[in-house]
Amino acid sequence: MRLLLINPNTSESITDLVANAARRAAAPGTEIIGVTAAFGARYIGSRAAAAIAGHAALDAYARHGEGADGVMLACFGDPGLLALREASHAPVTGMAEASCHVACTLGQRFSIITGGLRWGPMLEEFVAMIGLKDRLASVRTVAPTGAEIAANPEAAYALLADACNAAIEKDGADIVILGGAGLLGIAEKIADRASAPLIDCMQATMGALEAMVRVNARKAERGPLAKAPPVETIGLPPALTKLMAD
Amino acid sequence: MRLLLINPNTSESITDLVANAARRAAAPGTEIIGVTAAFGARYIGSRAAAAIAGHAALDAYARHGEGADGVMLACFGDPGLLALREASHAPVTGMAEASCHVACTLGQRFSIITGGLRWGPMLEEFVAMIGLKDRLASVRTVAPTGAEIAANPEAAYALLADACNAAIEKDGADIVILGGAGLLGIAEKIADRASAPLIDCMQATMGALEAMVRVNARKAERGPLAKAPPVETIGLPPALTKLMAD
Amino acid sequence: MRLLLINPNTSESITDLVANAARRAAAPGTEIIGVTAAFGARYIGSRAAAAIAGHAALDAYARHGEGADGVMLACFGDPGLLALREASHAPVTGMAEASCHVACTLGQRFSIITGGLRWGPMLEEFVAMIGLKDRLASVRTVAPTGAEIAANPEAAYALLADACNAAIEKDGADIVILGGAGLLGIAEKIADRASAPLIDCMQATMGALEAMVRVNARKAERGPLAKAPPVETIGLPPALTKLMAD
Amino acid sequence: MRLLLINPNTSESITDLVANAARRAAAPGTEIIGVTAAFGARYIGSRAAAAIAGHAALDAYARHGEGADGVMLACFGDPGLLALREASHAPVTGMAEASCHVACTLGQRFSIITGGLRWGPMLEEFVAMIGLKDRLASVRTVAPTGAEIAANPEAAYALLADACNAAIEKDGADIVILGGAGLLGIAEKIADRASAPLIDCMQATMGALEAMVRVNARKAERGPLAKAPPVETIGLPPALTKLMAD
Amino acid sequence: MRLLLINPNTSESITDLVANAARRAAAPGTEIIGVTAAFGARYIGSRAAAAIAGHAALDAYARHGEGADGVMLACFGDPGLLALREASHAPVTGMAEASCHVACTLGQRFSIITGGLRWGPMLEEFVAMIGLKDRLASVRTVAPTGAEIAANPEAAYALLADACNAAIEKDGADIVILGGAGLLGIAEKIADRASAPLIDCMQATMGALEAMVRVNARKAERGPLAKAPPVETIGLPPALTKLMAD
Amino acid sequence: MRLLLINPNTSESITDLVANAARRAAAPGTEIIGVTAAFGARYIGSRAAAAIAGHAALDAYARHGEGADGVMLACFGDPGLLALREASHAPVTGMAEASCHVACTLGQRFSIITGGLRWGPMLEEFVAMIGLKDRLASVRTVAPTGAEIAANPEAAYALLADACNAAIEKDGADIVILGGAGLLGIAEKIADRASAPLIDCMQATMGALEAMVRVNARKAERGPLAKAPPVETIGLPPALTKLMAD
Repeated sequence: MRLLLINPNTSESITDLVANAARRAAAPGTEIIGVTAAFGARYIGSRAAAAIAGHAALDAYARHGEGADGVMLACFGDPGLLALREASHAPVTGMAEASCHVACTLGQRFSIITGGLRWGPMLEEFVAMIGLKDRLASVRTVAPTGAEIAANPEAAYALLADACNAAIEKDGADIVILGGAGLLGIAEKIADRASAPLIDCMQATMGALEAMVRVNARKAERGPLAKAPPVETIGLPPALTKLMAD
Repeated sequence: MRLLLINPNTSESITDLVANAARRAAAPGTEIIGVTAAFGARYIGSRAAAAIAGHAALDAYARHGEGADGVMLACFGDPGLLALREASHAPVTGMAEASCHVACTLGQRFSIITGGLRWGPMLEEFVAMIGLKDRLASVRTVAPTGAEIAANPEAAYALLADACNAAIEKDGADIVILGGAGLLGIAEKIADRASAPLIDCMQATMGALEAMVRVNARKAERGPLAKAPPVETIGLPPALTKLMAD
Repeated sequence: MRLLLINPNTSESITDLVANAARRAAAPGTEIIGVTAAFGARYIGSRAAAAIAGHAALDAYARHGEGADGVMLACFGDPGLLALREASHAPVTGMAEASCHVACTLGQRFSIITGGLRWGPMLEEFVAMIGLKDRLASVRTVAPTGAEIAANPEAAYALLADACNAAIEKDGADIVILGGAGLLGIAEKIADRASAPLIDCMQATMGALEAMVRVNARKAERGPLAKAPPVETIGLPPALTKLMAD
Repeated sequence: MRLLLINPNTSESITDLVANAARRAAAPGTEIIGVTAAFGARYIGSRAAAAIAGHAALDAYARHGEGADGVMLACFGDPGLLALREASHAPVTGMAEASCHVACTLGQRFSIITGGLRWGPMLEEFVAMIGLKDRLASVRTVAPTGAEIAANPEAAYALLADACNAAIEKDGADIVILGGAGLLGIAEKIADRASAPLIDCMQATMGALEAMVRVNARKAERGPLAKAPPVETIGLPPALTKLMAD
Repeated sequence: MRLLLINPNTSESITDLVANAARRAAAPGTEIIGVTAAFGARYIGSRAAAAIAGHAALDAYARHGEGADGVMLACFGDPGLLALREASHAPVTGMAEASCHVACTLGQRFSIITGGLRWGPMLEEFVAMIGLKDRLASVRTVAPTGAEIAANPEAAYALLADACNAAIEKDGADIVILGGAGLLGIAEKIADRASAPLIDCMQATMGALEAMVRVNARKAERGPLAKAPPVETIGLPPALTKLMAD
Repeated sequence: MRLLLINPNTSESITDLVANAARRAAAPGTEIIGVTAAFGARYIGSRAAAAIAGHAALDAYARHGEGADGVMLACFGDPGLLALREASHAPVTGMAEASCHVACTLGQRFSIITGGLRWGPMLEEFVAMIGLKDRLASVRTVAPTGAEIAANPEAAYALLADACNAAIEKDGADIVILGGAGLLGIAEKIADRASAPLIDCMQATMGALEAMVRVNARKAERGPLAKAPPVETIGLPPALTKLMAD
């Protein structure tokens, strides 16, 4: 199985970090191709950066999607998820979407812990959009951004464990997702400090995406996620121009 | 009052059409500056085109937003609305958002009629996102796109009146929004053929935006719609690069 | 444009206060006719007083509605709103309804601050009734009634600013409505003390009502808000008797 | 047990009809005092008539409530229910509220059948207000008003049975409430023609009210349904003036 | 009227306690037959025990249901409620279901206080299942189980009163249900210590069940609660084998 | 990975059928242990049979759960799911739960097609319970039960394809789950006849369960799904008695 992992921010170091985590989480025989957004923010921490990233993720898919059996949008918050699902011939999920669905099968009410204060309301809205609002206990953000946590993860362990425990004890979560590229691998490091089970977003997403691919459902020919009719565009890179025109 | 009207598709003829309708709908003394997206689809009729348009709308704001007292996202479906509201120093609304809120004060359950089949689920999701799902009777689309209707509006009168009456009689709407650039001005032409009142989306949006400006609330300094912290970007046009970096 | 402003309580001083605020908020050329309820409570602060006020608002409309282009129910809480909308030939809104819809275009989650403890649950139910529950962060009431605040507004500034900040910091509001006749004009006075933007309910409602009138949608002939069939009544004042019998 | 039955319309013949049905449905030892509204519509079939009836029901309670152990608002649609519950020292329910709650313990999804086309949306909104929207299959109205059905019930049997069966077969109801004074006693007459069980609204409401009285919960001293603080009023009948001033 | 009271746990002392409370709460002429589960937990305080109890309640009905006019599932939490309603020829309710519906007619937002920490989320889910989530202020559990409270009720008075007042003052309840066999009779003992009215779950349920029986609706022949088609089973007691095979 | 597959009905032939499908769907290295309920219905098609099956699934887990890395409740409708999740030391999912979550990542609105008319409302309630109601387009049942379809699948192809297309064209589904043991393997057979993608419930569930196991979250020690405190029971088989007493 060949999976395209799209990092919709423009930091190649993050792409490498996420792709390596993906490889560790993947089943034997799963190949990971990591690709970085060609334009936009180095780190996505606002609605504006996310809006640009939705475009950039499409562009990355246009450049590298051919031949992929599945596509992972590797930014927790999943900018452009539905547009990518519409455009892609193969199954697509994002780290936030997949993690939330997996959490719903492991617990009753989940919380999300992530870095970067602006992600709080954005993720609450995302969870509502995918219909899981009643299963969400809370989103709690810590002040360091995911990028800052990634630079020095151990410094953030105590902060993250405190956020997990606050989600559990104050918000009623019985399962907690550690979300975001910067937090990959931390769930197992702080599991002992948390009073409920923790989920690593890559471990959840990789298994979920492999499961989606194995379902082997065909691409919809009509309906809300079918490939859209061709449209003329201007000012777009060649691969995306072609994707839109097909 | 100086209002920036952003057409997030790349058809200048549509910008002219919408800006002219805006000028007719505006109060005396309101000035309309129309601006067209610099990249993206000629017509927005898919999730992919809308994702690109969200980026393009931000870019248009970055180029022309300075000095505006208010901003109208002039595509019914409002691609990038919240990102634009975050980025803008002045109040922002879109034709779909404003029309839906106005409809809720004129009727009990509203329907939306628009051109282009792909807009049906996209608009249902939009209405849910702004919290008005319980007030929505239905979204009904007609096969011609907004662009096709704009090219020959009279040919579409019967089709649109039928859609309005289906929304009223089958879906339980008591007020109907005619949405989209291509349908501007048609509400009054077919009002007599419809069994419930019709709303022209520009007339609703212009009044609503002027009202928002007159409320004179300041830009939030924090919270989900405050201007985001500066972020380094790559590959973006100069004005947008600067907006993101400020 | 000629707007009828109905004060559904029986204090003429409040009518004057609200009508003057309305005139300041109105666009040039908008004429305001203020009218006071003929029976009921001097101040509306209970469900019983609101139930009587719903009747009194209809009666006031029956006496003065002819020739109005729009009607404002000038009590924040909007007693009898839908009955008045049914009975009226012209568009109707209330200060609570209009302010909530405007708030939804200026922020993500709004709170309401008002005077009089009994209004808390009544306004929560009102917001749910108009379908905006998911956008509401909280209703916070201060102990002085609107009438008491109107008598000495400056004494209430600190109390109201504290309530605004509690709504923002504890309840998650990013936009706050100051609701009620007694609080008119206070938003701009305490804006600097509040950590999120404030909305004056009259400034929001006046613009929204003018926008509704400008939409120029006709009165529904059928459906949930059409004028009801004539019905024989007893014991009502002549104008209302006639309104019901028409 | 002494129960006050308030007919909020001004037709004494309806009061007699409803009070007689109440007496047949009551447990041994339950005494029914019927009282008719002093002002308002002969028949309540609009939002305006219902708004007036809310006031009239309070007035009737003010005149006759003393000594009652429980109060029934005997108009299916329950105009002024919460205001009456606030004002009353004794438990209060209405025929719609009680019937809906009883229906939820006898079936999974209930429909309401009643006379008078305008009641459809009004009852849908009522059911949503009491929080039972997810249990409601539909409200179906027949064209004759409750008053017209009461005048010649047998003529309406076929029409009502058809409406019941439509609710069951098309809307998914598995239990159906026949609502309204005009429909009292009809459930048992047409039970054999309906493909799901039927509920007579008086039989449901009388048992539910007796149960409420037997719970013997005291009147709340605070909170959303406590008696409101005294307020000065003008233009109201003496008993209601006193009730508001106490 | 002959009512079958099913205690789905296997403690006969609890059956006696509950049946005696039922007899005190019943109307004159109502006969109570108490029956105890033949297998399962001595006390139900987990999802596993409740799952077994749902089976045991069916079995108890199969053994003793004949001739009953109504059935009460006398465990607050109502394990197996809908299965029992499906299987039973007579109306069925449970102490949680009935109490919640009665509470909705006596207050605006109810809380539940019960013993046994595991019941908190189980009861929140139950209230959501019956569609009353929007009316629920909170479920608060105290650490002693219902069985422990029943063994020494007076020791728990202060604890329970504190829980009631926390529900009222922190969670916004204006009516509080004391739920569970162990708490029967305590509502009136601690009513004076609580700042809102309290409901004894047996007093509410007995009246509600008698009301349901008096509605005299027939058993559904089809739909979600009709008796299911016969099915072959293995390994079940004779009476239940027969019930399933009929 | 060692997965316990619990068939909660008492037909060993169904266990074999489901376990074989599970083995085909599993990743290399996944071992499937199938186990059949020791008591209850041959086929589960009612609430009563499902209630008994919830108990039987716990019993099967008590007998065979030791050493399992994951547990699949292999009846589409998942009787006793949460009780089993509480009792199990390893991750648990059911064919309905897992399929619904997977469907939400492959489409926008899913429908379920299954055999046996009684499953319609039961599955609607199940989907609501897991919080996915807003993503559900419909549940459509065909008259033959799952057992009957399993006996002669090809005879049902046309019927099932029609149901799929009705779900797509009338109910708005863009992805359809074929649910139930009897329908395993049919999705790929009729994919060409359906106008939207189809999901085989075993293929979805197997991948989802493997993903859950790979997340490697520990069993909760507290909260709504932790193992419950020990409780004395009577009348249960030895293994379940021990499970409850531990």
